[in-house]
Amino acid sequence: MTGFTPAPSSADLGVYGLGVMGANLARNLARHGHAVAVYNRTTARTERLMDNHAAEGEFVPAADLADFVASLRSPRVAIIMVQAGAGTEEAIGQLAELMEPGDIIVDAGNTLYTDTRRREEALRDRGIHFVGMGVSGGEEGALLGPSIMPGGTEESYQRLGPMLESISARADDGAPCCTHVGPDGAGHFVKMVHNGIEYADMQLIAEAYDLLRHVGGLSVAEIAEVFRSWKDSELDSYLIDVTTEVLSRTDPATGQPFVDVIVDAAGQKGTGVWTTQTALELGVAVPAIAEATFARAASSSADARAAVRGASIELGASQDAPLAGVEREAFIEAVRQALYGSKIAAYAQGFDEIATASAQYGWNIDLGAMATIWRAGCIIRARFLEDITRAYAQEPELASLLTAPVFSAALAGALPAWRQVVATSALTGVPAPAFAASLAYVDQLRAERLPAALIQGQRDFFGSHTYHRVDDPTGVYHTLWSTPERAEEKWN
Amino acid sequence: MTGFTPAPSSADLGVYGLGVMGANLARNLARHGHAVAVYNRTTARTERLMDNHAAEGEFVPAADLADFVASLRSPRVAIIMVQAGAGTEEAIGQLAELMEPGDIIVDAGNTLYTDTRRREEALRDRGIHFVGMGVSGGEEGALLGPSIMPGGTEESYQRLGPMLESISARADDGAPCCTHVGPDGAGHFVKMVHNGIEYADMQLIAEAYDLLRHVGGLSVAEIAEVFRSWKDSELDSYLIDVTTEVLSRTDPATGQPFVDVIVDAAGQKGTGVWTTQTALELGVAVPAIAEATFARAASSSADARAAVRGASIELGASQDAPLAGVEREAFIEAVRQALYGSKIAAYAQGFDEIATASAQYGWNIDLGAMATIWRAGCIIRARFLEDITRAYAQEPELASLLTAPVFSAALAGALPAWRQVVATSALTGVPAPAFAASLAYVDQLRAERLPAALIQGQRDFFGSHTYHRVDDPTGVYHTLWSTPERAEEKWN
Repeated sequence: MTGFTPAPSSADLGVYGLGVMGANLARNLARHGHAVAVYNRTTARTERLMDNHAAEGEFVPAADLADFVASLRSPRVAIIMVQAGAGTEEAIGQLAELMEPGDIIVDAGNTLYTDTRRREEALRDRGIHFVGMGVSGGEEGALLGPSIMPGGTEESYQRLGPMLESISARADDGAPCCTHVGPDGAGHFVKMVHNGIEYADMQLIAEAYDLLRHVGGLSVAEIAEVFRSWKDSELDSYLIDVTTEVLSRTDPATGQPFVDVIVDAAGQKGTGVWTTQTALELGVAVPAIAEATFARAASSSADARAAVRGASIELGASQDAPLAGVEREAFIEAVRQALYGSKIAAYAQGFDEIATASAQYGWNIDLGAMATIWRAGCIIRARFLEDITRAYAQEPELASLLTAPVFSAALAGALPAWRQVVATSALTGVPAPAFAASLAYVDQLRAERLPAALIQGQRDFFGSHTYHRVDDPTGVYHTLWSTPERAEEKWN
Repeated sequence: MTGFTPAPSSADLGVYGLGVMGANLARNLARHGHAVAVYNRTTARTERLMDNHAAEGEFVPAADLADFVASLRSPRVAIIMVQAGAGTEEAIGQLAELMEPGDIIVDAGNTLYTDTRRREEALRDRGIHFVGMGVSGGEEGALLGPSIMPGGTEESYQRLGPMLESISARADDGAPCCTHVGPDGAGHFVKMVHNGIEYADMQLIAEAYDLLRHVGGLSVAEIAEVFRSWKDSELDSYLIDVTTEVLSRTDPATGQPFVDVIVDAAGQKGTGVWTTQTALELGVAVPAIAEATFARAASSSADARAAVRGASIELGASQDAPLAGVEREAFIEAVRQALYGSKIAAYAQGFDEIATASAQYGWNIDLGAMATIWRAGCIIRARFLEDITRAYAQEPELASLLTAPVFSAALAGALPAWRQVVATSALTGVPAPAFAASLAYVDQLRAERLPAALIQGQRDFFGSHTYHRVDDPTGVYHTLWSTPERAEEKWN
């Protein structure tokens, strides 16, 4: 046991769980003048934090959970930052036992929003505010300024908001990257979609790299310079910076480009899966996010990849790729346009998912504000987000981000080159599934007529699933396919 | 009350729920010499069945559930065919109260396999066999011979199997389209993936139609003839027949092609969503099934479609589509090849999902047998399935269906035209998302190197997620990106 004996009501808020993320969040709070109670199940981590960082601000360490809760001034605020799942469930249960009506428990982990909704409802009945809070920016962001997406009640945000806004990242205009997202699971939902968009963003960049290398014939170092130059375009973003850094690195051990010594099997922690599963549940099309998630799965299916490479599927690449004869600078620009167009489509999908959930759950989420708080601190921070903020400011009820004037103009500019790049991918066999899915998404929404009409006819034929008629869109019709006359009946 | 007073132990099995599907299943059983107890919550349906069909065989009607159960010979078999969800849950609960150890309850609805696993476990503890059973073929199939996919214990299949095999569809070689799929949720799982494949199959056909019409310039009647002619190819299938029928129909009211009077918004009942969500859960890439599911959602998003059509996104179709100058017969054949190649890819995805679940849940599913029982009775019945059966007979441990000699040869033949068709779709703006996703799936699995390596580099940079090295594939490495030296550390 240690000698940590905190004074009652001496801390402004507390952090439960002092892994790297939790410790950095606590340090960030302390550095901004908040008295931070700190607790960890194993006291060694608390001791380490105090040994190394006590001078950074006012910490109130506790070795005992009851002392930790007692050290919080009322209404109490405890932020949980432990492993999602059983660890979080346990921490919430322990804290709830010790807290009083009006107190606030915050789950700052990556929790599925349906779990957050369930927990919020259970604690609401006991008068305790439960806040599901998305935090993006990784370990460094937690310390230096993350993008923060808290859900929960308005009342809880009045107590929490000023502290969170003091430690969040700030956009170039000085605005904090933190806002009250909406009730119950809204914060975790928006963080989930943020991550889904991040998957798509990364996959699109990876496809651009792959095409520049294997169709354009650029070296890795040349591609690094291409990405560096794209900072001067609409593509300017943190992930473009990261890409430039990774591609610029030479492996010291072999002298090869670093990217060539990495095993090409992408890992994932589940938020891409959640984003896609949830979109399916909501009936929202998110093909770019889905393809990004599937691409990681496909890359990791080592047995299938080895077997297919070994099978006699001839390479089948065609020589008349539309861009094969094009000069190098034009190809680079075409890939940039394809990346920009695809990125717009991917963000449109993510924002559609948030808008649909917001309507379904009555969250009333300000979509433009989501783009605003992603402008700094988080992984997808980008210049581009300013345009999204403006688009929703001009028209809060946008049916699709694609239709905002800035983006429909951008798409019109990008589409010709984007089409050429997707065609080239198909013809050369250098796969670009997210480029292709994003283009098809735009083309589906733009189509005057879709072959979904044929699908409705098929469904009526084999399953009596009925159809609507263009001259009576609300009527329900069925054709008696199995009778010789094949008469049409109106059922409703 | 009616006068239905069944004699105890007089029925071979019973059907609970006499909607069209349940009534047809009961009639099918009675016509094949089984004494069938029939029960429905509202007795009117039981009366209607007896009034109209009593002469077709031996029915044992019951107005009371206890009488229904008492009328079943031991060990009792009761097949539930009611609305999935609460109705099924209630029926199972009622039956379980009246049954004894060794008896068998069958859920013949489209139930999510995780629900089936939960129910099977609960009833197993009480000694009752619970069988989740997939039935495909719609109303007509239920009466004339469906494809049947029962899960559950071996013991339950010994009692059930002979009756089910007597009423199932039969393939051309006389084999019944019914087999014991595997334990607990295996039957419902396989039926779910069957439906997911059906979504992909229908979307692929719809894309072929759309390209023939809007790129090839064929009339609807001409396209109907093209599909009719494809019966003489590897594409021969029930869904090709259905397509021919739908496209051949003229709307009597307007004289227009029938497909042109149908509203182009495709409905769905959820099994495509389940198949994709489950694949994501299992880490299996099923992009063709996902795109088919998303295409239905996109077609039904009327507001977004209207807004995008109204926005100033210029059509942007290019004139140098690779196939634009090609003569008509060659284009038709290219689309056929694209459809065939895409279909192979979609089935490979579905079978990968089944194989992965089988390994995860210890189901030991015979993949070749699944193709065998889909050869007749069900919606995806097709000549093509014979090849799948043979492929797994030759090599039960296929890492991917793509690598079976018959399919790798077929893909090699299809790929050049398939690439041209996907490129043409991209260039002309006639969307073919499932063609494109299927092609990219094959190209991803065939790639020597994937840009997933770059993604791993990005993930290590911003989240310390580590990577493996090609010269040490099991070692876990991290680069200290934030230090000037950027040294590489081996963590494991």
